[in-house]
Amino acid sequence: MSYLGIDIGTSSCKAVVFNADGRPAAPRAVRNYKITSPLPGFAELDPSIVMTCCFEVISEAAKSASEKIAAICVSSQGEAFTPIGTDGKALDNAMVSSDSRSLECMNDFTTVFGSEKLYRITGHTPSTLFSLFKLLWLKQNKPHVFANARKILCFEDLLAFSLGVEPAMGWPLAGRTMLFDIAKHEWSHEILDALDLPSDKLAKVLPSGSVAGQIPDEYASSLGLPKGVKFVTGGHDQTIGALGAGVFEAGDAMYAAGSVECICPVIPELTLTQTLFRNNLCSYDYPLPGLWTTVAYSLTGSNLVDYFRNTLGNGEDYSILTGEMPDFPTSLLTLPYFTPSGTPYFDQKTPACIYGMRMTTSRGELLKGMLEGIALEMKLNLTILEESGIHIERFMATGGGCRNPHLVQLKADVLNRPLMCPSVEESGCRGAALLAQSADENMSVKELSHLRMESGEYITPRTEYAQFYEEKFEKYKHFSLSVRNLFKKN
Amino acid sequence: MSYLGIDIGTSSCKAVVFNADGRPAAPRAVRNYKITSPLPGFAELDPSIVMTCCFEVISEAAKSASEKIAAICVSSQGEAFTPIGTDGKALDNAMVSSDSRSLECMNDFTTVFGSEKLYRITGHTPSTLFSLFKLLWLKQNKPHVFANARKILCFEDLLAFSLGVEPAMGWPLAGRTMLFDIAKHEWSHEILDALDLPSDKLAKVLPSGSVAGQIPDEYASSLGLPKGVKFVTGGHDQTIGALGAGVFEAGDAMYAAGSVECICPVIPELTLTQTLFRNNLCSYDYPLPGLWTTVAYSLTGSNLVDYFRNTLGNGEDYSILTGEMPDFPTSLLTLPYFTPSGTPYFDQKTPACIYGMRMTTSRGELLKGMLEGIALEMKLNLTILEESGIHIERFMATGGGCRNPHLVQLKADVLNRPLMCPSVEESGCRGAALLAQSADENMSVKELSHLRMESGEYITPRTEYAQFYEEKFEKYKHFSLSVRNLFKKN
Repeated sequence: MSYLGIDIGTSSCKAVVFNADGRPAAPRAVRNYKITSPLPGFAELDPSIVMTCCFEVISEAAKSASEKIAAICVSSQGEAFTPIGTDGKALDNAMVSSDSRSLECMNDFTTVFGSEKLYRITGHTPSTLFSLFKLLWLKQNKPHVFANARKILCFEDLLAFSLGVEPAMGWPLAGRTMLFDIAKHEWSHEILDALDLPSDKLAKVLPSGSVAGQIPDEYASSLGLPKGVKFVTGGHDQTIGALGAGVFEAGDAMYAAGSVECICPVIPELTLTQTLFRNNLCSYDYPLPGLWTTVAYSLTGSNLVDYFRNTLGNGEDYSILTGEMPDFPTSLLTLPYFTPSGTPYFDQKTPACIYGMRMTTSRGELLKGMLEGIALEMKLNLTILEESGIHIERFMATGGGCRNPHLVQLKADVLNRPLMCPSVEESGCRGAALLAQSADENMSVKELSHLRMESGEYITPRTEYAQFYEEKFEKYKHFSLSVRNLFKKN
Repeated sequence: MSYLGIDIGTSSCKAVVFNADGRPAAPRAVRNYKITSPLPGFAELDPSIVMTCCFEVISEAAKSASEKIAAICVSSQGEAFTPIGTDGKALDNAMVSSDSRSLECMNDFTTVFGSEKLYRITGHTPSTLFSLFKLLWLKQNKPHVFANARKILCFEDLLAFSLGVEPAMGWPLAGRTMLFDIAKHEWSHEILDALDLPSDKLAKVLPSGSVAGQIPDEYASSLGLPKGVKFVTGGHDQTIGALGAGVFEAGDAMYAAGSVECICPVIPELTLTQTLFRNNLCSYDYPLPGLWTTVAYSLTGSNLVDYFRNTLGNGEDYSILTGEMPDFPTSLLTLPYFTPSGTPYFDQKTPACIYGMRMTTSRGELLKGMLEGIALEMKLNLTILEESGIHIERFMATGGGCRNPHLVQLKADVLNRPLMCPSVEESGCRGAALLAQSADENMSVKELSHLRMESGEYITPRTEYAQFYEEKFEKYKHFSLSVRNLFKKN
């Protein structure tokens, strides 16, 4: 048997078939698509294009399968949804995560409903990211679309629906809508009532790794899938990616170093605290039974290396630029808000700030100083998690930024934690395939035999530098606070 | 008749012969020499090398004179001095301005003597720059050199001495020793007593443009100078350079954009205020009768363009890099301490800080943002001068940084003052030659006929940008204060 993992991102979708022993059957199939922005703050995907691309990658991947595909599963971008009309067609484009048009709706709703109450139910703090506020905008600004929608579907369940399966999504994706009661594991009636949205317009919610249904033969055969192939629930991409990177137990976390940097740990119990609440550190389901997670992230990540390369690095090879970085910690201090911040501040206004340059500062030192800033911001997140009893002992590193040893060592030194770089690519597809396999074999993910043979390169923190960064972190906290308050009155 | 101006700097000396109509007779003669630093904080010049170089440039320039040289005059680096033994030879190297070994001596002396009292007498606030503290260090650490010195001479008077003229210096150079009573125009007995230094070991002090003596024939002929050539007092290089740039009247100031940026205005009366005192803005003689000056400076100047070019600009041509700068003001805010600061803070510790970068910030924008920081720091100086009643209406721009129209326009916009770029190079040599001519013709500098025909390019501030920079300046003051206080407690 083999298993198909599909990763539906905001700029592309990918599919990889994995054999039962965990090895990919062939290189990934990929299709790219583009976010459109008809107005400032708007960010949309055409769901029919996304679905067509999904069909294409499934079809391409299916062809490469040497063994029969028993089940498929989706790792899905969060928050975006598509209103579906009675004819089964999309009534509008999907507003993706970065769409921020709902800011006003969000503020109004939160004031009335109460942000602490919202947090207690959903495990999330308000942001224009979340489906709830996007739906509010739709209701207020396109009431006919909102009213005429027979279904409102995220991309995981939209794919199920498009494949003729009753739409269903895993709990980790439901958590990202802010419509989900994360403790009861059902749609929140209180929130749906406030939104005036009947729960039957939404997908079924199931634990990750549940069989949502079988793909009807006519759909399956058109994509080159075998008869009887199961559609298994996956969930929100960060969590599925963490699973695919080998994050199975409390103490472990994914460190995804893509253009955005993201920490996604395993948490042994649902943890809702004032500290997490105040710091925008959400709590929601991990795609393994009885486990929880959060996402701590910085929107400035290895995109900063690209920026540096294009703007100040004369387009040099990455290896040349990162090779110029001094081995030792720099004397620079960088607040890394080259983009809006992620957690803990959700700060859109404060820009980056670089302190400590002198005419002796080299290009490599400047680059390293900037990247230290990102790592220190992530260390700040780590500290806040620790304060709520969420301990991370080691990281499983994924993403392009983890293929460069200079960058990984820097993170290990700053975070004072080992990072394992698993020999896995496409951890999103792999996590989904693991869930598909576990559902098909009726076995927990951790029991899948091939996982016990895994290994990867371990990068450990260097004691003297870790100590230096502990001291630098104290300065960083002070710096961050000062800079963020700099023009508050202006 | 023609007139020889000599400029003795810290890295080179130059000589240019000017005809009576103000035109240079030939290109400048230059010799370079090197500062040595035997220990950290030490910065020394071998005075015999400097004098040999001076002889060489005088000799080379003299050959190019088509008309008889009637007088010579010196624009001299400040503060450095040479102890001369009974045999007429140097007993030690000269400690130049940037030599900072005297920090402890300075603090001890100032505590006992009183910094306000020092300011009232000398018009200067303590810094390791000044000869007083360097001499204290010499006295304490090389007492035999201090005791055995028959003469202690700055470079202007050392050259006179080396040419067989009784050593003499202009008031503007005497002001930089911090041994000079600027109101009485004599060496301060109070300070010399505290230093236990007899005043006859120092040079005669005379107004700039005074005939100190005639160079004896044997010295003159060995350098190719005519018989009877006069040695005329000049003074501190910034002030002589200002004169050479055409700064003659209250309201005018030099804006020297060399590796260091420096403002040197004409002030109609001796102005000593608490504001100037607290902000390290000195007061001393301008080299025209009855006029005064100050120097406001930033040690980060066009050296920052060089740094940027070499480190982040891929060694591109200056015109390419400055051409990439957007025409409009940037949204960046830079505290330009890529070197220790100059006035008003004399801050060695605070490094540069760049606020406001985003991934959309271009290379040209970053460069412009950095240079705006320097201009804003100079605007800060301008404001402090204004508060003490010292008004600057326009600037005469000199230095390499003023040959680039982008850089001059930026200064005009930020400072909200017109800058005139005179068609004069080597303003130090020219200022000295003007003094030589005025002494020889017994005519005030301003009466020299060729000065009335001068012109240059005027760069005026652009109203809308000047307004923007006024607002940005308010932010800059707040930013500067915040950043300078950032780690005060650490």
